Amino acid sequence: MSAQTKFLLDESKMPRHWYNIAADLPVPAPPVLHPGTMQPVGPDDLAPLFPMELILQEVSTEREIAIPEPVREVFKLWRPSPLIRAHRLEKALGTPARIYYKYEGVSPAGSHKPNTAIPQAWYNQQAGIKKLATETGAGQWGSSLSFAGALFGIEVTVFQVRVSYDQKPYRRALMETYGARCIASPSNETNAGRAILAQNPNHLGSLGIAISEAVEVAATHDDTKYSLGSVLNHVLMHQTIIGQEAMLQLEMAGDDPDVIVGCTGGGSNFAGIAFPFIGQQLRGAGKTKQRRIVAVEPAACPSLTRGRYAYDFGDTAHMTPLTKMHTLGSTFTPPGFHAGGLRYHGMAPLVSHLKQLGIIEATAYHQNECFAAGVQFARAEGILPAPEANHAVLGAINEALRCKQEGRSEVILFNLCGHGHFDMSSYSNFAAGKLVDQPYDEAELAMALAGLPSVPA
Amino acid sequence: MSAQTKFLLDESKMPRHWYNIAADLPVPAPPVLHPGTMQPVGPDDLAPLFPMELILQEVSTEREIAIPEPVREVFKLWRPSPLIRAHRLEKALGTPARIYYKYEGVSPAGSHKPNTAIPQAWYNQQAGIKKLATETGAGQWGSSLSFAGALFGIEVTVFQVRVSYDQKPYRRALMETYGARCIASPSNETNAGRAILAQNPNHLGSLGIAISEAVEVAATHDDTKYSLGSVLNHVLMHQTIIGQEAMLQLEMAGDDPDVIVGCTGGGSNFAGIAFPFIGQQLRGAGKTKQRRIVAVEPAACPSLTRGRYAYDFGDTAHMTPLTKMHTLGSTFTPPGFHAGGLRYHGMAPLVSHLKQLGIIEATAYHQNECFAAGVQFARAEGILPAPEANHAVLGAINEALRCKQEGRSEVILFNLCGHGHFDMSSYSNFAAGKLVDQPYDEAELAMALAGLPSVPA
Repeated sequence: MSAQTKFLLDESKMPRHWYNIAADLPVPAPPVLHPGTMQPVGPDDLAPLFPMELILQEVSTEREIAIPEPVREVFKLWRPSPLIRAHRLEKALGTPARIYYKYEGVSPAGSHKPNTAIPQAWYNQQAGIKKLATETGAGQWGSSLSFAGALFGIEVTVFQVRVSYDQKPYRRALMETYGARCIASPSNETNAGRAILAQNPNHLGSLGIAISEAVEVAATHDDTKYSLGSVLNHVLMHQTIIGQEAMLQLEMAGDDPDVIVGCTGGGSNFAGIAFPFIGQQLRGAGKTKQRRIVAVEPAACPSLTRGRYAYDFGDTAHMTPLTKMHTLGSTFTPPGFHAGGLRYHGMAPLVSHLKQLGIIEATAYHQNECFAAGVQFARAEGILPAPEANHAVLGAINEALRCKQEGRSEVILFNLCGHGHFDMSSYSNFAAGKLVDQPYDEAELAMALAGLPSVPA
Repeated sequence: MSAQTKFLLDESKMPRHWYNIAADLPVPAPPVLHPGTMQPVGPDDLAPLFPMELILQEVSTEREIAIPEPVREVFKLWRPSPLIRAHRLEKALGTPARIYYKYEGVSPAGSHKPNTAIPQAWYNQQAGIKKLATETGAGQWGSSLSFAGALFGIEVTVFQVRVSYDQKPYRRALMETYGARCIASPSNETNAGRAILAQNPNHLGSLGIAISEAVEVAATHDDTKYSLGSVLNHVLMHQTIIGQEAMLQLEMAGDDPDVIVGCTGGGSNFAGIAFPFIGQQLRGAGKTKQRRIVAVEPAACPSLTRGRYAYDFGDTAHMTPLTKMHTLGSTFTPPGFHAGGLRYHGMAPLVSHLKQLGIIEATAYHQNECFAAGVQFARAEGILPAPEANHAVLGAINEALRCKQEGRSEVILFNLCGHGHFDMSSYSNFAAGKLVDQPYDEAELAMALAGLPSVPA
């Protein structure tokens, strides 16, 4: 075990461009539609919510978009993130596979989310915006935007799904330490929130509802814009710094991945590690090796494996445009499992499009097997993964066990998108045998899918 | 702000030796005494508690001791740790000083403690030991030894101070995830614990009591040794990898520190960053610059600034040998402030000796000003420091503000020994104005000092 463990890049080697997969798609992704006119939305439709630079990124088909220097300066606090060879996990599994993980938990907020929070805050600051509203589930995104706001002097308001707000006071404390305001959603601060509370004052909230509240605040306040931590094209593009770095680091290691694994909720960390490799494949550039790209999602919220590829709203109150994506229906409420960052009814349109084109695979796991994988990983590699990341850990372990069975020494790369330091109550519950693999309600799914908006072909 | 931010060393540059300051002391530190005979203890006296390799390190005067290759292999999971230039903090303070911090929070357990947990577990494994007993306050040390135990197949039992056990269930969950057993101390598992509980069944515990319990378990079980996370010579030596790396990294930066700051509880993270620089100075090697070395301790447990330099026990039940150190008396119980890792009545003999020789300075701060410094740091640099590390942060900030006042562009290096992800309730309480700067009880201190053992000169 004397081979190299950690592959570090000097900050001078940090990528200077984001990679935009729209430039290389064999078929363009379907347009985003205005729900009133059913016509494609234009930049002006999005202007109340986002600064123009981000809107232009959202619709760009340029292959490379320069990362602004002030953004790169902030990234240098923790980027390039390490690529680590999982020597000890390989040994524990007895696999001939070589397993590498890109570790995004080194960011101050503990996940990949600052990769997009920092540029989003910066572009808003450049556009003269003083306030941002956003939503968060488990709190990874909320704390990342709070951190970004502190650096660029932007007031951040975070609508946090109430069940997480109550269960994870420490994530909230982190947001508040960065100077942000955190509000349990549904709240009395918006029409969307008040309408839900009128029906059920004890509503536990959902990401869809929290999005509605944050969008409403941005849409109704001239000095406030909205910021989203996943799903959108520009958000996924900001994460491609992960895969670009991993590509350089695997070159240092003299390896080339056969399988790339990421967990998917909205799709951003998966896109971050996978898109640069997919782009290489689509362009026929680099090595000609055909790689398998595997998205791992929770069995209790299985948009890619059980959802319909259809136009749907991104939020519960139907304030967003319509996007074509794998969706369980905007009214679908997944059971309360512990990977809060993966509890979203839809999927990033770009990830959905690639799934539809057969360029990526998807698989779904239950939460107890994911936590077991996380514990095994921690005891071998030290790092305690976030519950979301445990899905990718299990995906990588299963690929490594397949390699063992088939006697193949494939190279497996996965994205360890964050640590679980704020999720210890979940680990406690797992250790105590208190976690339940609660399936989603088939009837509710059927109803949610039946309620999908009808869009003329 | 385009200058370099992060100074990384490739793992091939990781130090291959620990630095032993005993080789360079102008006067040897006073011997450790057997409390029965009042004679210096020999290796055999310590054999029930530690494997012989560690005992030999404890008394060695060799300048360099090789780090075993299997230990270096584990270190590669996170070491060398980054040295970061605090550009944003400097700007926020408006100081001409250049501030660098060595960030030890990148370890899987979140602090510098694995630097000694890993070699201690390894030497015990090599000696055929299957079980280790230890104590922990806030849990940084306990989780580090639990992690080390998982890697080397050693069963770890941790006696955690009850007040922390109850207040910080997530640290305990981390220890248990690594496979360790965590017991609230005082417990019913030892004579020391039962004696305390007989007097007060609701005793909140203390590090001194937890040490007594762990030592008793090791002393009365043939298959179990004891492991300590600070204070002892070999523990401090294991931490010198921090300062050695920092020296190489500051060379990369083209800078040389004028002031080095670390927080002190038992003294190990302070020693880790400072001893290699002190040794250089003592040998007259390297640059001739006279550096100031500043230890920062909590005003509520001020062993270096208010304690007596005297022989004392390391624990409450008086099961340890007598060491000459700055002590508040082994019966002194500090008020319940939030930097649990600094709540110890004594100080490492080597750190005490250097203080006595006038080679280092010491200063004490109250907890609210330390938390305020931690929040300022987080909003500038992103990383949320552990409450212990906040003492070093404030020390560095105060040095930088002095530089501003004096118009001097000095170079300040401090050890950011861990993150505060498991201490968010303290940050919440600070934000809510609920933290009290409770002074220690002067009468209790006087009584504890009066009770120091009398040792013939």
